[in-house]
Formats: sequence, structure tokens, C-alpha cells
Amino acid sequence: MHQTVNAALEINLLHVNQEGADHNRQHFDEWGITCLNIMSSPGAGKTVLLEQTLKALKAKFKTAVIEGDMTTELDADRLRKYDVPVIPINTGRSCHLDSKMVAGGIHILEHNYNPTDFDLVFVENVGNLVCPAEFEVGEHAKVALLSVTEGEDKPLKYPVMFQEANCLLITKTDLVPYLDINLDRIADNVRQMNPHVDIIYVSANTGDGLKEWFNWVNDIVKHNKAKQLSRLAKLLAHNINS
Amino acid sequence: MHQTVNAALEINLLHVNQEGADHNRQHFDEWGITCLNIMSSPGAGKTVLLEQTLKALKAKFKTAVIEGDMTTELDADRLRKYDVPVIPINTGRSCHLDSKMVAGGIHILEHNYNPTDFDLVFVENVGNLVCPAEFEVGEHAKVALLSVTEGEDKPLKYPVMFQEANCLLITKTDLVPYLDINLDRIADNVRQMNPHVDIIYVSANTGDGLKEWFNWVNDIVKHNKAKQLSRLAKLLAHNINS
Repeated sequence: MHQTVNAALEINLLHVNQEGADHNRQHFDEWGITCLNIMSSPGAGKTVLLEQTLKALKAKFKTAVIEGDMTTELDADRLRKYDVPVIPINTGRSCHLDSKMVAGGIHILEHNYNPTDFDLVFVENVGNLVCPAEFEVGEHAKVALLSVTEGEDKPLKYPVMFQEANCLLITKTDLVPYLDINLDRIADNVRQMNPHVDIIYVSANTGDGLKEWFNWVNDIVKHNKAKQLSRLAKLLAHNINS
Repeated sequence: MHQTVNAALEINLLHVNQEGADHNRQHFDEWGITCLNIMSSPGAGKTVLLEQTLKALKAKFKTAVIEGDMTTELDADRLRKYDVPVIPINTGRSCHLDSKMVAGGIHILEHNYNPTDFDLVFVENVGNLVCPAEFEVGEHAKVALLSVTEGEDKPLKYPVMFQEANCLLITKTDLVPYLDINLDRIADNVRQMNPHVDIIYVSANTGDGLKEWFNWVNDIVKHNKAKQLSRLAKLLAHNINS
């Protein structure tokens, strides 16, 4: 968040963004979609994680991706190879996706596909360990990635991202032997910021940890779908009885 | 930059910031100080580069560091070991340093030391490949770092930082053998964004490239000091003659 914006305006910006996020989530809930917001520094491995995830899960869950980048469709093109709808959003000079931009992506999904067919929407955010954590986009969970090459101290120095995350993936674990780094110390620093976050260690190169990540996604989609169905059933019952 | 801020306000923010940056640079020029703004993603190696640079150059150039972090003084503490003044600025939730924050650091330097004794001030920015590039702080040159672990495509995807940089350090080159990456392709992508930027390949672990970086710093400090002296001589001559 830019501190040069005064405090009242900042609260207003976040408030307007939150209203948009709630509206986006309402759409997702009506359609039975679980939305996951994927965030990290540039180059921590968001896109390669999504490539592996689409390969493993697209037969199980009908999936789409809303792909945020300042410029280019390089990442969108990588993900299109997996035959899922990929909706690119170029943020221009903006350092994060906000709920209004994601609403634009949702409208494209709605007008070009049957949204109730979908189970899962990944939002790949702009690579930035600071601002995306503050701007909810309508997700059901926030997934943060931290690569082992970024250093042990990052959870302490960039606390908001780690406090907000529901799941933290520690990526590129195959590089640990070549670094002066200790995985336990990273996890300890993460737990200082967020004692209850799910931590998964992964390497997209070796495949280590990916199964655990796929299980995490599977569980949240199943759990969320049950909640969405129960809510719809209650609404239906209410309408029948009234 | 947050796109939710409307365009007129955004221009105004940047304008106010620029005025503050010009004012900061005027102070540096009067004191004969060269200011370098060091920027990168989190964990690209800004602090370790500064550690090596202070070790190598502090006997030659009287140096201070203005150290930006959202929270903690972890990096400031690392640099204090080199017996130079380190002025920490915690930005709170802000994703970059702006000229007003750096002015606060300059005032601390001015009140606690004799600023004309100094040759060189490093500003270590918040780890963020997006926003710091837009907010000048009064520096004479922008130095960006990109670690080889971040991937070849980053100059294309985060263009502003690469367009603004006067010097680009490609860091952690000792990790190249363990990555599916090509240094020439990184450099080509950088040159697409900025054909004239100085590119230096470094590894803080092996020491490769550090001498080239120290020479770059040496040259800019010498060149800038000559300009600053010439400007002061002209002012003096003007005042004598008027």
C-alpha cells in the first residue's frame, strides 16, 4: 500500500475493494466454484505450480485461471497449453490485482462459458510479496509461495503476506543443498507470523510435495462445495416455506 | 502503483514525490554525496551486496546507508557491523520508500553527523520489483538486482524497473548450474527494455563480478563529485561577479 495516500483515502480504497471482493465471491458461491488467490514474489514458482496442478487436477475439477501480469501474456500462454480457459489481465503499472480487475475476468468467464460447469478458479496474482496480500479479490483462500532462494528472514520482513495466507508453499526445495539455508528456521519464522497456516514444501523439478499440495486443493474444493450446497439448500428451503 | 487511485490523484502523488526527490538530491549535491537507490524483489541479494560493498569501499568513500524495510531492523543490524551509519526506515504497510521517508533519513544524517564528510549514501529499498521503480527518492542512479533464480522472463513482465535502472546486477550466478536458465537470454530480455543499461553478473558467494561492481560505484562517485564541484565553482564565481 502506498503510504503517500492519506489514511482516510486508504481505508476507503480497501473498503471499496472489499465490497467488490464480496460480490465476486457471491458469484463464485452461486456457481459452486472455489477460488484460490496465488501470490508470491516474482519468480517464486507460481506459474510452474499451476502448470503441474492443471496437469494433475483438470480431469477431476473443471478449472479456469485468471492470470494477472503487469504486461505480456507469457504466463497465460504457458497455462493455455493445458486446455483450460485462461483469462489474462494486464495491470499496466499496477502492482497487484484488485477485486474490480478480477470482476472483469469473472465477466469474461460468465459470457464465454457456462460458469456453473466450473469447480475451481485460480487467480495468479502479480509477483509482489507486499501489496497483493492487502487486496482481496473474492477468493476462498489465499495461497502464498516463498522460494528457498529468497532467504529465511522474509516472513519477518514482509509479515502481511504470511499473516494472510491460508496455505504457504515453500518452493524450490531441490536448491537447498546449494544454499546456506535451514528449512526449519524458515518454518519457525512463518509460524511466528501465522501459527495456524498450512505449510507444504515443494519442488516442481523433483515433484516432491506436489501430492500434498494437490490433496490440499482437493480438500478445500470438496469442503467449500459442501458449504456452498448447504447454503443453496437452505435458501431453497426458505423459499419453499415462505 | 495502485490502480484504484484515480489517475489525477496518481499524477499528483508522483509529482509531490518528485519535488521531494529533487529537494533531497539538492542536499546530496551541496554535501558532495552520491546517492544510489538499490532495488529488487525480496531476497535477490541487496543486503549481501551492500555488506560486500561496505567491506571493500568504506575506507575509500565515507559511506552511510538508509535502510528501508516494512518491519524489523534485521538488515540494518547486518550492515551496522561494518561501522558505518545505518539509518533504518520502517515503512509499515507501504511497499516502497518515497522521497518524504528518505528526507527523514537525510535529516537524521544531518543532525547526527557532518554530512559534508560523506561521499556515498546507499538507499536500500523495500524488496519489490514493481513500486520502488516509480518513486524517486533523490538518488543519482538506480541500481536494480535480478537473481538468476527469478527466471529469464522477469524483465519483460516487470518492465518499469528494468527501464528505470542505470545499472542491473544479475545476482546469484553461482546457482546457474542448478537451474534451467540461460544468462544470455536474461541479458537479451533486459536489453529489450533498456538497451543502454550497464549489466554486471555477480555472485556474492564466489565473489565473481564484485570487482566490476566496485569499479562501477567508484566511477559514478568520481564522475558525480566532479559535476558537483563544477556546479559549486560556478555558483561561487557567479556570486563573486555579482
